[in-house]
Amino acid sequence: MEFSIDYFTRLADEAVSQIKYPDVCAGLYEPIRYAMGAGGKRLRPSLCMAVYAALTHGNPLDVISQATALEMYHNFTLLHDDVMDNADLRRGQPTVHRKWDANTAILSGDTMLSMAYGMLAKDAGERFRAVFDVFNRTALEIDEGQQLDMEFETRRRVTIEEYMEMIRLKTSVLLGCACQIGAIMAGASEEVCEKFYNYGISLGLAFQLQDDWLDTFGDPVIFGKEIGGDIVNKKKTWLLITSLAEAEEEVEGILGEDLVPEERVTQIKRVYDHLGLSKRCAAVAMRYADEAVAALRGVALDRDAEDFFVDLAHKAATRNH
Amino acid sequence: MEFSIDYFTRLADEAVSQIKYPDVCAGLYEPIRYAMGAGGKRLRPSLCMAVYAALTHGNPLDVISQATALEMYHNFTLLHDDVMDNADLRRGQPTVHRKWDANTAILSGDTMLSMAYGMLAKDAGERFRAVFDVFNRTALEIDEGQQLDMEFETRRRVTIEEYMEMIRLKTSVLLGCACQIGAIMAGASEEVCEKFYNYGISLGLAFQLQDDWLDTFGDPVIFGKEIGGDIVNKKKTWLLITSLAEAEEEVEGILGEDLVPEERVTQIKRVYDHLGLSKRCAAVAMRYADEAVAALRGVALDRDAEDFFVDLAHKAATRNH
Repeated sequence: MEFSIDYFTRLADEAVSQIKYPDVCAGLYEPIRYAMGAGGKRLRPSLCMAVYAALTHGNPLDVISQATALEMYHNFTLLHDDVMDNADLRRGQPTVHRKWDANTAILSGDTMLSMAYGMLAKDAGERFRAVFDVFNRTALEIDEGQQLDMEFETRRRVTIEEYMEMIRLKTSVLLGCACQIGAIMAGASEEVCEKFYNYGISLGLAFQLQDDWLDTFGDPVIFGKEIGGDIVNKKKTWLLITSLAEAEEEVEGILGEDLVPEERVTQIKRVYDHLGLSKRCAAVAMRYADEAVAALRGVALDRDAEDFFVDLAHKAATRNH
Repeated sequence: MEFSIDYFTRLADEAVSQIKYPDVCAGLYEPIRYAMGAGGKRLRPSLCMAVYAALTHGNPLDVISQATALEMYHNFTLLHDDVMDNADLRRGQPTVHRKWDANTAILSGDTMLSMAYGMLAKDAGERFRAVFDVFNRTALEIDEGQQLDMEFETRRRVTIEEYMEMIRLKTSVLLGCACQIGAIMAGASEEVCEKFYNYGISLGLAFQLQDDWLDTFGDPVIFGKEIGGDIVNKKKTWLLITSLAEAEEEVEGILGEDLVPEERVTQIKRVYDHLGLSKRCAAVAMRYADEAVAALRGVALDRDAEDFFVDLAHKAATRNH
């Protein structure tokens, strides 16, 4: 078996394309097919399969149903988040609530959440209860993360600690959950399950910090998105929160001015440069990548599996798209 | 043990009031507490406990967690339905999306759905997988029912068969599910589980038809709602669908006129009277109540339990509020 992210992504893509939707009620299921077919990194199902395969040397397709459940769940959160954020585009396509309407996004999203629970149960056998418990706790944490994210928008100040807790809940716990479910399905010990969960948590933090970095310092051609959107929207990212802590008056002054978007981005980036935030943000992301790798210390892995998890962590912190 | 609906309702009310919400993230959990505390019939948890107690002669509190899960799930559907229907009031109080906002209703609703799954698992032991399967299938059916309900609003014609299928999905399957979960938790045979499921299905149909009847023919003081709302909103209920099938031109004529609400209600009710729809709707509701009772034939029940299920079915079809 090839142990690469491309391999697991292909398996996940294939599984997603083969999801069976009921023949009835096309108005409910067509938006789900649309959202699931829009692509994406398939990171959560890939992690689940990779952990399972690494621990069992078995067929990653043994956990394809749990892997697909994680992807379905992730896309459910995107449907509802996009309604709440009033977002127009997702992966370059109109969001479900734009292509259809908000009611469709709400109800098809609800359906995706129940479909995810159903897929989680399929072929899980005696492991189901353990898998369910992790997944259900994670779903509640992610709701809390989204709630915090929304509350932060209207709060004047957010500390770095609060921000890290928010992204842990909103992003990291699902990566931890994906790894842990792979480990549970492999019949791993609680200790190994926990190590993989911690790997996913740190991976998620590295991933999200690099996301913040890319939005400000990325190459728009390679990143595939406009640069500076977070600054224009005054989004409280690691960069903005840190700059507010270290150069409050200057940053508040720029944000308070009625500037055209490009000018605001230029001026805020000048502050970021002055504070050395590009390098510092990248360094923090890399520290979490290292923590992810360290979390797996003591887990017996073949060389190709170990390389996979190490590379993935470092790529999360250094990726340019 | 007292075998009455009041008794089970009290147990359910008490359990709802004792739900533990996390101390964190009040913005997420406060709307849930508000929605759960607004009262309601607690029919679903009562059914679950009643079936369990009837089959085991045991303590209905053995299944209080599953019963509460059903109530949490039901209230989740109300939160999201109220957003989709843009409803202002629920049980005489402002809906969550009015008291807070739509985003709160969406996200707190999502949280309720995951909380419901979690409660379902609690203390379910080895029965969990069977309980989960019924619940998960039911949740998907209810989503389909809500989708159909929304689609019917913009469709010119809906047949009675389509309407009955919609209310089966939107309302009945959750009552069937509540009964079946009570039976599964009691360790009943598949045959008995199915009989109770069918009882809940027919009970739900009787209940919903009487709901249609009350909206047009109820006593506003006793019913506690304004009468005629369905007619004003041209809602395709059993009454309107039947009148459209039997007196199309007349009904279309009235609905097409620009009448003040009271006049539209008066004129449509005149057609209903002419067609004898009040008695006929009540008779169909009673037929489903009888079917509910018949579904339990062959189940060995104590006299008080049997009386309970028979009375409940007949009350569903004859209740005046």
